[in-house]
Amino acid sequence: MSEFAIGVDLGGTSLRVAVVDDRGTLLEKVTLSTKVLRGPERVVNAMCDAIGVLQTKYNSNGKFLGIGVGVPGIIDLGTGVLRESPNLPGWHDYPVLQEIEHRLGTRVILENDANVGAMGEYWLGAGRGFDSMFMYTLGTGIGGGIVLEGAIWHGMTGMAGEPGHTTIEPDGPPCACGNRGCLEQFAGANGVLRMAKDAIASGDAAKLKRAIEGGEELTPKLVYKLATEGDKACRAIYQKAGEALGISIASMINVLNLPIFVIGGGVAGAWEAFSPFIFDQVRKRSFVYNATAPPAPERIAPRCTHITHALLGADSGLYGAARLPMLPEEQEAHSPKARVNSRAL
Amino acid sequence: MSEFAIGVDLGGTSLRVAVVDDRGTLLEKVTLSTKVLRGPERVVNAMCDAIGVLQTKYNSNGKFLGIGVGVPGIIDLGTGVLRESPNLPGWHDYPVLQEIEHRLGTRVILENDANVGAMGEYWLGAGRGFDSMFMYTLGTGIGGGIVLEGAIWHGMTGMAGEPGHTTIEPDGPPCACGNRGCLEQFAGANGVLRMAKDAIASGDAAKLKRAIEGGEELTPKLVYKLATEGDKACRAIYQKAGEALGISIASMINVLNLPIFVIGGGVAGAWEAFSPFIFDQVRKRSFVYNATAPPAPERIAPRCTHITHALLGADSGLYGAARLPMLPEEQEAHSPKARVNSRAL
Repeated sequence: MSEFAIGVDLGGTSLRVAVVDDRGTLLEKVTLSTKVLRGPERVVNAMCDAIGVLQTKYNSNGKFLGIGVGVPGIIDLGTGVLRESPNLPGWHDYPVLQEIEHRLGTRVILENDANVGAMGEYWLGAGRGFDSMFMYTLGTGIGGGIVLEGAIWHGMTGMAGEPGHTTIEPDGPPCACGNRGCLEQFAGANGVLRMAKDAIASGDAAKLKRAIEGGEELTPKLVYKLATEGDKACRAIYQKAGEALGISIASMINVLNLPIFVIGGGVAGAWEAFSPFIFDQVRKRSFVYNATAPPAPERIAPRCTHITHALLGADSGLYGAARLPMLPEEQEAHSPKARVNSRAL
Repeated sequence: MSEFAIGVDLGGTSLRVAVVDDRGTLLEKVTLSTKVLRGPERVVNAMCDAIGVLQTKYNSNGKFLGIGVGVPGIIDLGTGVLRESPNLPGWHDYPVLQEIEHRLGTRVILENDANVGAMGEYWLGAGRGFDSMFMYTLGTGIGGGIVLEGAIWHGMTGMAGEPGHTTIEPDGPPCACGNRGCLEQFAGANGVLRMAKDAIASGDAAKLKRAIEGGEELTPKLVYKLATEGDKACRAIYQKAGEALGISIASMINVLNLPIFVIGGGVAGAWEAFSPFIFDQVRKRSFVYNATAPPAPERIAPRCTHITHALLGADSGLYGAARLPMLPEEQEAHSPKARVNSRAL
């Protein structure tokens, strides 16, 4: 008899709850609209109802291992409070962990959505079989998750894994985070759209301009479509995105020497348009990449640095959330600790 | 009765062997010139003789825990072979671990010199009491060492911790590693000298030029001396060094969210001249730094990101090497592994 866990992926538009067994088989998935439910109370009620129904239904299938929940935004891991979430307005400072645990009467593992996405890819996707992994998630902005020797790396306060705000061009365009020239300004949906608007404004992207004037919506997908059709301006946008990613990944390889870097999120669908420029930059900028004998892209070999796209799509977070209660406690996460000795306090 | 270990710091000019007890007290230190000894065989013989004498001498003092050796250059951690070492010509592909263990008849822990330096600062210096630490070592180039939850982070092949070759300016000056605009081009002795030469050549550093024409040697120390005397050109050089370090550290804070970053190595002696610009850049470029409520420099507080200078000077590597055999095996190091599953091989 197999063991199973429940994973929850709480997003700005939908709430998904899944039953996953310990071999990674998705037994059932429930999808609810968070938009319709409005407000944290109703969403958490609906989430807990769904969890309860599924737990009862699968109880006879095997040992129930627990519940993992992925939440977008900044979580205070010590208290389980959702500090800020651009995708969940109205959830500011909401004690999400406490509210869920109170309703269910059991312990729940709360985790940032980029981290559960990374854990999903690490378990069943592109990172499968590797010891450690760094995932870049190209969404509206750029998130990330780092898995070191099987466990999510949280850092001191749970804010680790933000490659979107590493500096690529010190004098580059301003970013909402306060910095200039962040990776997020070049890759991720907002970065692609910023560059597309700049190209239209400077008169360099006639075809893109015509498409928009013809009624098409300016999206990374439209830019990608024109790029694959050979449009020079749109190709240059994805070239820049790939180069910026390559600069960031090259630095991370030199610092962390990890075996695999995975690019996920919606914009990663344009992999063909930007990935050659990642490899160009990494070869030029990372002597550790070159010293670890990079294989041809997509080939897997030991002692090589792999750079590839995610495999699980939108389900990575659901699998990753379900994985958390399956891990031994010491592997669940490198816990945030701020241990400081007494000498200078 | 206390326990003790022997630490060895093998450098390009000197070989130092020390007896350190488990509370971090240096009981005895022997210094030999590696220049005079010439060649790996003689150096390893002298090293092992010194280790043997010290081990016998302190045997009655307590339990002997083992031997740690710090070596400059790239070590193949799987085999213990010193691949390349700019500071130890003639040691190319020398099986240093095997040769030492053969002579001593016991297990020895071999480690890169930047990593043992980081371990020393983590144990007894600036990193004392913190859970994790990132050390930048400003020597001729820039090395580094990362300690995560008590253990050195090696990465897949032992090449982790090379912040000197992270990209600061994508179109910046070429670096010997093949990249352009590496941190090493702006901070570290070579970076400071490169900028000093550029300033002299462009006519911007009249005072520095006069000093050299008057017979002084162009060193980072001379540039620092003139900077502290108020010379604008020399101050600008250390400003640039600090800014480049700040850009790199800001990115590392956003990715790793570590509680402390330590700047060591010879050039760190110019801390007063460059450190204000590190803090300027980090405040501008790292929202994680700002979110973790940075304390005033030099103050220690929990849940803050600390950036400070090293405390142990040249002895950090000696203490760090001696520390290695004291650690429980699982803490000794995050071992280099290249575990890859069978699905795609």
